Amino acid sequence: MSSTIGKNIRLTVFGQSHSDAIGGVIDGLPAGIKLDGDIIDRFSSRRSPGADPFVSVRVEPDDTEILSGVKNGYTCDAPLGFMIRNYDIRPKDYSQFTDVPRPSHSDRPAYIHSSGYCDLSGGGHFSGRLTAPIVFAAAVIYPWLIERGVRVGAHLSALGRVVDKRFDPLGGDVNEFERLDDTRLPFLDKRCEARAKAELETAVDSSDSVGGSVECSVVGMPAGLGSPMFDGVENRISRTVFGIPGVKGIEFGSGFESVSMYGSEHNDPYLGERDGRLITASNNAGGVLGGLTTGMPVIFNVAFKPTASIARAQDTFDFRSGSMTKLEINGRHDPCIAVRAVPVVQAAAIFCAADILLDK
Amino acid sequence: MSSTIGKNIRLTVFGQSHSDAIGGVIDGLPAGIKLDGDIIDRFSSRRSPGADPFVSVRVEPDDTEILSGVKNGYTCDAPLGFMIRNYDIRPKDYSQFTDVPRPSHSDRPAYIHSSGYCDLSGGGHFSGRLTAPIVFAAAVIYPWLIERGVRVGAHLSALGRVVDKRFDPLGGDVNEFERLDDTRLPFLDKRCEARAKAELETAVDSSDSVGGSVECSVVGMPAGLGSPMFDGVENRISRTVFGIPGVKGIEFGSGFESVSMYGSEHNDPYLGERDGRLITASNNAGGVLGGLTTGMPVIFNVAFKPTASIARAQDTFDFRSGSMTKLEINGRHDPCIAVRAVPVVQAAAIFCAADILLDK
Amino acid sequence: MSSTIGKNIRLTVFGQSHSDAIGGVIDGLPAGIKLDGDIIDRFSSRRSPGADPFVSVRVEPDDTEILSGVKNGYTCDAPLGFMIRNYDIRPKDYSQFTDVPRPSHSDRPAYIHSSGYCDLSGGGHFSGRLTAPIVFAAAVIYPWLIERGVRVGAHLSALGRVVDKRFDPLGGDVNEFERLDDTRLPFLDKRCEARAKAELETAVDSSDSVGGSVECSVVGMPAGLGSPMFDGVENRISRTVFGIPGVKGIEFGSGFESVSMYGSEHNDPYLGERDGRLITASNNAGGVLGGLTTGMPVIFNVAFKPTASIARAQDTFDFRSGSMTKLEINGRHDPCIAVRAVPVVQAAAIFCAADILLDK
Amino acid sequence: MSSTIGKNIRLTVFGQSHSDAIGGVIDGLPAGIKLDGDIIDRFSSRRSPGADPFVSVRVEPDDTEILSGVKNGYTCDAPLGFMIRNYDIRPKDYSQFTDVPRPSHSDRPAYIHSSGYCDLSGGGHFSGRLTAPIVFAAAVIYPWLIERGVRVGAHLSALGRVVDKRFDPLGGDVNEFERLDDTRLPFLDKRCEARAKAELETAVDSSDSVGGSVECSVVGMPAGLGSPMFDGVENRISRTVFGIPGVKGIEFGSGFESVSMYGSEHNDPYLGERDGRLITASNNAGGVLGGLTTGMPVIFNVAFKPTASIARAQDTFDFRSGSMTKLEINGRHDPCIAVRAVPVVQAAAIFCAADILLDK
Repeated sequence: MSSTIGKNIRLTVFGQSHSDAIGGVIDGLPAGIKLDGDIIDRFSSRRSPGADPFVSVRVEPDDTEILSGVKNGYTCDAPLGFMIRNYDIRPKDYSQFTDVPRPSHSDRPAYIHSSGYCDLSGGGHFSGRLTAPIVFAAAVIYPWLIERGVRVGAHLSALGRVVDKRFDPLGGDVNEFERLDDTRLPFLDKRCEARAKAELETAVDSSDSVGGSVECSVVGMPAGLGSPMFDGVENRISRTVFGIPGVKGIEFGSGFESVSMYGSEHNDPYLGERDGRLITASNNAGGVLGGLTTGMPVIFNVAFKPTASIARAQDTFDFRSGSMTKLEINGRHDPCIAVRAVPVVQAAAIFCAADILLDK
Repeated sequence: MSSTIGKNIRLTVFGQSHSDAIGGVIDGLPAGIKLDGDIIDRFSSRRSPGADPFVSVRVEPDDTEILSGVKNGYTCDAPLGFMIRNYDIRPKDYSQFTDVPRPSHSDRPAYIHSSGYCDLSGGGHFSGRLTAPIVFAAAVIYPWLIERGVRVGAHLSALGRVVDKRFDPLGGDVNEFERLDDTRLPFLDKRCEARAKAELETAVDSSDSVGGSVECSVVGMPAGLGSPMFDGVENRISRTVFGIPGVKGIEFGSGFESVSMYGSEHNDPYLGERDGRLITASNNAGGVLGGLTTGMPVIFNVAFKPTASIARAQDTFDFRSGSMTKLEINGRHDPCIAVRAVPVVQAAAIFCAADILLDK
Repeated sequence: MSSTIGKNIRLTVFGQSHSDAIGGVIDGLPAGIKLDGDIIDRFSSRRSPGADPFVSVRVEPDDTEILSGVKNGYTCDAPLGFMIRNYDIRPKDYSQFTDVPRPSHSDRPAYIHSSGYCDLSGGGHFSGRLTAPIVFAAAVIYPWLIERGVRVGAHLSALGRVVDKRFDPLGGDVNEFERLDDTRLPFLDKRCEARAKAELETAVDSSDSVGGSVECSVVGMPAGLGSPMFDGVENRISRTVFGIPGVKGIEFGSGFESVSMYGSEHNDPYLGERDGRLITASNNAGGVLGGLTTGMPVIFNVAFKPTASIARAQDTFDFRSGSMTKLEINGRHDPCIAVRAVPVVQAAAIFCAADILLDK
Repeated sequence: MSSTIGKNIRLTVFGQSHSDAIGGVIDGLPAGIKLDGDIIDRFSSRRSPGADPFVSVRVEPDDTEILSGVKNGYTCDAPLGFMIRNYDIRPKDYSQFTDVPRPSHSDRPAYIHSSGYCDLSGGGHFSGRLTAPIVFAAAVIYPWLIERGVRVGAHLSALGRVVDKRFDPLGGDVNEFERLDDTRLPFLDKRCEARAKAELETAVDSSDSVGGSVECSVVGMPAGLGSPMFDGVENRISRTVFGIPGVKGIEFGSGFESVSMYGSEHNDPYLGERDGRLITASNNAGGVLGGLTTGMPVIFNVAFKPTASIARAQDTFDFRSGSMTKLEINGRHDPCIAVRAVPVVQAAAIFCAADILLDK
């Protein structure tokens, strides 16, 4: 079941970085969702590799072909199959990494897992490219979610040492989210952009990469959805988010800061209820208590490691010869994977929010 | 499926804090595991409320009765049903919280989720007491895991502002784990204990509580287990761990620190392979790459919020009268839920490690 | 997942014939179902071994103890854990069957499956006694189903060569179902009873057993529920029904008779719609088209093999000595397992009908 | 989850009869299976509509394009995505059936299920064409199964009133299976073919259709695989087989005949064990006891209803006008869907057998 996620809506993902196509099947979609080409295009272009100097130069149009499940522009109660052709395929680039694995890549573990049969080209099934189906699925579902009063936004909460301000956990202006969609470095505090560019340039200049983090907010969920134990809001979101390559951690609401907080600081006093949503004076809960939505924004923050592929020579082990060696990875790569991960985290949240709403 | 976890081994949990019993069913256990009473007792007593001044005074023997699935002391290929009677039941204590909900408890969301039919006594199905079945299941499975060379340890990585040293991510002395089992405040650096006691006393004296965090290490997993996408090591562990009440975040390896790291610092150079385990010079990966084990220790850290039940009067909303009110929560509660969560996190890791091993 | 069934409501069953208890966990039950003691008792007593000369003499009160999930008599949104103690345990009776397996019992395959660790006493986890949790779960759910206008009945469609008339597939008088509940040999045509008693007596007198079949009808399902492909009405019912020991086949509507029918005979002309249910002039479909309910009664028929345990000496193989031998099975056994299976098939249908209704 | 089947190998199917493509994703395939083009082609051509006068004239090459999951001709441990383009699309043919539904088709239930958004063209997601992905998946897996000594065959056990002889339940000559592959009317007894042709001609001449049945045998499964309760051999096979359009019933071994049998006739005496397979003197069990394989051939028989689309005018209801009407269905259709279902049933068995083998 490794490539399927969701309880009510089930997304199954297929593809390798350099296979003929990648794609997926979305089963359990409500019938009658009108596909919104603008939303699909915008999500796709935000995730895609492009002309920006700070992202990798692989050029893929990410044109998604819908194969089934849609009739006259509406979902038709049958599984929605879709695919994205891989055009810019250079499988030769990766042949050596089986025996001389790239540090902090999945090359060697994947080789072992597959008894040697894996396709490592471009990262194979482990590639960041495999997030495109998640993004597409979310873009299909998002209009349905908006209709139910739920909006989802995400931004770079940090890039290296550049730290953005946080979303207003009590529910900021949701339109702010969309303004961020048009920026390549989506910070809430615009002053971060220049500093982040400098951080990225420094990394590129020194043949290096940097980490980052993405904060996401789901605004408008009614109270009382989700589940205690193993199928709650955090369980589902975390399981989905760890499907994005490079994720190292996730925290909800006050997250790791709550470790050093007192209960009297951390507790969120209730102020009442509005439109099926509980209102609290603070939102350290991150919109979730006991696995259930409170009605306050569901807020989580995701840590991404620095891009593992860096241009400088690195130490690694040659498993054929049995000795240490130096490895140089050619090609250009995103200096910070968190940047393009912003719409992916947002997509994961959209997917989970819709899935949770459908529990009812 | 809210109360079931696992892919190969499936644990289904039942019970409320004040129902006649809590318990579970473990399906898919390998046949022929010899139950180890010592391990079961030790896990149970570490998790149980006891006489310690810093943990709540509810006294429950946590005697687990095995109802099925064991023959002559060995698992017999049938689901293992078990239960723990609830003796110290005082359901009257909680009747008011439906309308005057405790801040940062699931009272009100659970009321909404259940259309008013929920059992809030003692936290109902949301209670920390529901972690006892996870701990029992892990204690049943652990001998099987040890036989396969896998050991799991956990400690308090922080309690309030007291921060412990970390496990040696390259694989410390696994016997150190067991020494910690006997201490009520299991820190690796013994000097933390006195400071943590002071922290707890301060909290209790001011009718308050503190947060904490638990670090866990799984040593001895072979390389190449797990899965990319949605069923990998982090996906499964995070989904399970967020089933423990009070968890606010989880990070693997370098976790949130990786956000401000450079790739050249973060990458873990390969040094070779030993006994089916890849060896790296550092372990920022936390033993996982692309959802697959590397063979290095699988290390993760879990943030717990401060206990929501605090003795001092708190602001909340009276949903009956529609006005703000003050709430005083009687009874004594753990000042720091992370303390008793240490064996629970360890148990979740044992459960997941066995489940992942069984993928083969 | 061998012991869990259902999509929205999940029943997990545990126990062996001679373990301390059998029982289960029902997760996903709608909150607020009022438990109906009469229904529970009636289902339980119909399935239980009793004083009837034609059913086995093991005496078990089948008193079900509810351990969790119910508050003030209503389901409370937490998993309902329950158990039934095994009192009449005689484990000694079955020790020999590992090496000298009873023909057409699961003894030897179970021994192999469990690497020798299985508990064969009384059939272990394979025993017909394990249907008691299914029956109990259905009895809990049935009031919820009745409230939604759905009624479920079952009868012996055949016992040996005695063949009962069929339900009126266009929807007979549902009250007829309940009259059958009080009879030990529930035939629609009362004249079958005497003949069936004679058939049973003949079997008992010749130390033999006979087969039988159970027809079940679910009346009142709205049209359009279920799913095409793998999660439709027949998929779910058949998967559940094959969980009952001794089942050899299942057919819906015209079933195996449709093999020799012409399309012009078999097609069910539409007559209209009433209360969300399509009306057809005939019901060869058995209330299901394309995996979806039509609104006509969902009708299926289940074949049961003759009881495998017969009193006469049988040929079998002694796997210890490696030679053929004679085996005599002591104790008394139901001469026809289909008789007590009637409420079990009905229970399986109730469970599935509720699960399908909850798809909405 | 309606379009996904399997536990270890998970097949997700997408497509409508007249969507751009149909296809699927196979997840959990063992790495290193060498794809066998001959097997794939043979399965595909047996299932495809062709030039035979007795099958429908829609011409589709059924050319399957593999999109991912294969590298250098071997499965590569990533999900295998594939699609088959729909070329011969005539969506106009079906527009009327929403309001004037075809008897015994899923038109009207599907319309209700989808709140009117369904795609009924050619049967939509309910079409027999959706069995092509099952057949392709089986053709990919079959070499892996053959390597493990397991062979699967199927034949027409009946077509209308023409009844074929049965497989030798003790394990006939498996090569006989492959001879049948080349015949359009695959009977074991060659004399059936002429009679069946006459039966089909009669049906076609009278603008009618006939039912049929398919018997399938899985030879070579080791003993002790499967599971009691809900995940046994019969549970899995039946759930899969009811995903094939037109199936009305399934029976294992002696099936519905066991209803009128005595235990002394029905029981299968053990004769010993060979190569991990139990040997019995008869095989009324159909190779399964208690949900577990015995090692004898797993034999089941599947009933198919007559094709619902017949050329003669039929009574139906016009849901727009609210009155009865006559409907004529144009185009030509298979007079007996069981014929082309033979490789589909075989494919379902191959899929399940591999899935069950992978439990180990």
